[in-house]
Amino acid sequence: MTNIFAAQTQLELHRQQFPALANKAYFNYGGQGPMPQAAIDATNSAQEYIQRSGPFSAEVNAWTTQEVEQTRQAIGSELEVPAETITITEDVTVGCNIALWGIDWQAGDHILLSDCEHPGVIAAAQEIGHRFGVELSTCPLMATLNEGNPAEVIAQHLRSTTRLVVLSHILWNTGQVLPIAEIVQVCRQHNSSRPVQVLVDAAQSVGLLPLNLTQLGADFYAFTGHKWWCGPAGVGGLYVRPEARESLRPTFIGWRSVVIDAEGKPVDWQPDGRRYEIATSAYSQYAGLRAAIATHQQWGTAQERYQQICQLSHYLWQRLTELSDIICLRVAPPQAGLVSFQLTSSKRADSTHLQLVKFLEKQGLMTRTLAAPDCVRACVHYFTLPTEIDLLIDKIQKFCQM
Amino acid sequence: MTNIFAAQTQLELHRQQFPALANKAYFNYGGQGPMPQAAIDATNSAQEYIQRSGPFSAEVNAWTTQEVEQTRQAIGSELEVPAETITITEDVTVGCNIALWGIDWQAGDHILLSDCEHPGVIAAAQEIGHRFGVELSTCPLMATLNEGNPAEVIAQHLRSTTRLVVLSHILWNTGQVLPIAEIVQVCRQHNSSRPVQVLVDAAQSVGLLPLNLTQLGADFYAFTGHKWWCGPAGVGGLYVRPEARESLRPTFIGWRSVVIDAEGKPVDWQPDGRRYEIATSAYSQYAGLRAAIATHQQWGTAQERYQQICQLSHYLWQRLTELSDIICLRVAPPQAGLVSFQLTSSKRADSTHLQLVKFLEKQGLMTRTLAAPDCVRACVHYFTLPTEIDLLIDKIQKFCQM
Repeated sequence: MTNIFAAQTQLELHRQQFPALANKAYFNYGGQGPMPQAAIDATNSAQEYIQRSGPFSAEVNAWTTQEVEQTRQAIGSELEVPAETITITEDVTVGCNIALWGIDWQAGDHILLSDCEHPGVIAAAQEIGHRFGVELSTCPLMATLNEGNPAEVIAQHLRSTTRLVVLSHILWNTGQVLPIAEIVQVCRQHNSSRPVQVLVDAAQSVGLLPLNLTQLGADFYAFTGHKWWCGPAGVGGLYVRPEARESLRPTFIGWRSVVIDAEGKPVDWQPDGRRYEIATSAYSQYAGLRAAIATHQQWGTAQERYQQICQLSHYLWQRLTELSDIICLRVAPPQAGLVSFQLTSSKRADSTHLQLVKFLEKQGLMTRTLAAPDCVRACVHYFTLPTEIDLLIDKIQKFCQM
Repeated sequence: MTNIFAAQTQLELHRQQFPALANKAYFNYGGQGPMPQAAIDATNSAQEYIQRSGPFSAEVNAWTTQEVEQTRQAIGSELEVPAETITITEDVTVGCNIALWGIDWQAGDHILLSDCEHPGVIAAAQEIGHRFGVELSTCPLMATLNEGNPAEVIAQHLRSTTRLVVLSHILWNTGQVLPIAEIVQVCRQHNSSRPVQVLVDAAQSVGLLPLNLTQLGADFYAFTGHKWWCGPAGVGGLYVRPEARESLRPTFIGWRSVVIDAEGKPVDWQPDGRRYEIATSAYSQYAGLRAAIATHQQWGTAQERYQQICQLSHYLWQRLTELSDIICLRVAPPQAGLVSFQLTSSKRADSTHLQLVKFLEKQGLMTRTLAAPDCVRACVHYFTLPTEIDLLIDKIQKFCQM
C-alpha cells in the first residue's frame, strides 16, 4: 500500500480542481461525482456565449449542432466506439427506456432481469410487461458476489422466448463487476426463436472501468455523465451497437430524431444515434461533461485510473475487514470502486445503517445506505486520498464505540 | 400607440435584467427567450450549493426533492392549476410524447393533427401509427388564419374512431391563437366510441397568454420554460387534467415515477404528475426557471404582459403592412406575439427569406425563417422596445432597397 500514500501529494494538487472536495471526505461517487471547476466554468461560459450570441440565432444554432457532435465524439472516444453509435440522453434511465421501448415486443416474449437492478429500470420493464404481454423474470446474481458464475446463472434462466437480458455492468448495491462479454456470448449462443439482446445499465461502470464497447459486445449500454465522470447532472447517454440500430425504433421522438424535407416535414430518422435524441436539452452542460472527461484524462488513462481505484478500494476494504463491528459484503477485495458493508448483527441490535450514515454526514463524510441488501456503501475514485479512507475508518470506529 | 412609447423608459430599466438584450434587437422569443440575470444567478447558486453540500448527500437529496416540488408549484401557480397536475420534463416535446405514448391505443384508433404541428410531434404521432395500427390524418387549420372557424374544421374531421386531437395553442408558423376551449367542447360533444382527448402543444403559449388550464379544459398541455418564460433550456413541463391521469400510463419510467417499498422495489406510481418524471435531471436549472417566472411577475400580471405583447405586435404588424415589398400573413392585427411575413412575390424573384434573416442577423437583429409557409417570423415580448421594432422596419426596408 506504500504507493497510494506516496502519490498523495500529486493527488492533492489534482483534487484542488474539484471544489466539492474541499470541505468533506467524499464517498458517494456512485450517487454523483463532484464537478471539476473546469466543468463548472465550461458550462457557465457556454451559457454566456448562448446569451451573448443568441439565445436563438443562426450562429447559436450552428454552435449547438457542433456541441452535440463534439460531445458524442468525446463520449465515443472514451468508450472506444464511433460517435455515430452514441445518443445523448438526460440520464442513464432514459437510455434504458430507449432500449426497452424500441424493441418490437410480441405477447409471450420474455425479459430476464438480474435481481440487482435499479427500481426505475425494474418499473420500466414491468410496464413493458403490462403493455405488451411480455413475461418478466429475475435471476439471482446478488448471490454470486462471493461464489458462483453469473454467466452460468443467466444461462440457466434464459428461455426459448427470451429476447432481452437486463443487467448492470457493476451492481450498484454490492459493487460486483459482471462479466458482460461472457454473458453476451452466452446470450448469442442461446437457442431461442429470436436473438437474445443485452441491455446494460452502466450507471456505475462508465467513468470507472476502462471500456471498449465494441469488444464488450452488449447491444445497448446506457450510462450517465454525472456519476464517475463527474459531469453535470442531466447529461447521459446510450450506446447502441450498429447491428442493433436498424431494428431498435425510436420511441420518444422530437426534431432531433428526424431528417426533414424542404417543407419541414419529417421524412426519415437521423442515420445515427441522434435518432433517439428528442428535442431541446440543457446544451450549456454538454461542454461541462467534456471538460470533466478531459480533467480525468489529464491525470491518467482509463486503465491507470481504474488501477488506482482498485488499489484504493482494496485499502478501504482491508481496513473495514479489520473492524470488529463491520462485515464487508465481499470476502475478497473489491473489483471496482464500490465497497458495501454492514454492521454486524450484534451491533445492528442497537444501531441502524441509516444512523451510521447520518453520523458520518454530520462530520463531513458522505456515504449512503442501500435497501437491499441492507448496507452502507462507500465509493472511492482514483483521486480519493488514503487519508480520507483512514478518517472514514476512524469515524466508523467511533460510531461503533458509542 | 402613444402608450407603448411612453412606457419605454420603465421598460429599459426592466430590460437591463436580461444580458442577452444588451447587444442586439431580439425577435426570436418563439425560438428561445433570453434569460434574466436572476435566472442565471439562481442556476449558478444552485450548482454551488450542490457542490458545497454534496453533490450526493442526505442534505442535497432533501433539497432536490424540495426544488422539484417548488418548481411544480411555481409552474402550477402561473397556469392556475394545482401542482399535483404538473410533471417537469426536459422540454415540450417530451411532454407531448408522454401523452402520445400513455394512451392505450387499439388498432383502428384515429389521431387528428392540425396541419401546423412541429415536425418532432408529427414524427412521434407517425410512430404511434406504425406501432399500434393507429390511423393519422391532418386537418387544414393553416387556412383559417384570416377566415373560417378552426373549431368547425376540427368538428368536420373528427371520426367515430378518433381518440386524440393534437394541436398547438398558438400556431408556431402563422402565430394564430386557436380557440382551445371551444375545440375541447367540440371534442367532448363528439359522438364517438370512446372519449376524444385533446393534446395541446403549448410551446408558444406558455409565458405569452394568460392561462387557466382548468378552465381551458384540455387533457394534456405540454410546454417549455425556455421560450416565452425565458428560463434555461432543458426544463419544460406537462399538465395532465386530473380526470385524465388514471388512464394515462407512464411510458419512459425511472425512480422519480414510482413509490418504493422498504426493500427498494417499485410498488406503485407516484400519486401525482411525478409519475411521468423519469430520473436525474439538470436540477440546478429548476431555480433558474422559477427566477425567470418571478422576473416577469415583477413587471406585471400575465394579463398585463399579454396586453403589452398585443400592443407591440400590433405596432410591428402595422409597420410591416406599410412596407411595399412585405406582406403579413395575417390581414388583421396579431392575436399574440408572433408576426410572420413574406417578401412579395416580385421581391422574392431575386431574394430569399433566408437572405433577409441573414442580413438582419449580421446587423444584430435576430429573426428566423419558417419552411411552411415559406416566411420570416419576428416575435415581440412584453419587454420589446418600440424603437427595436422601428429598427427592424428600417433594416427590412434597407434590404428591400438593395
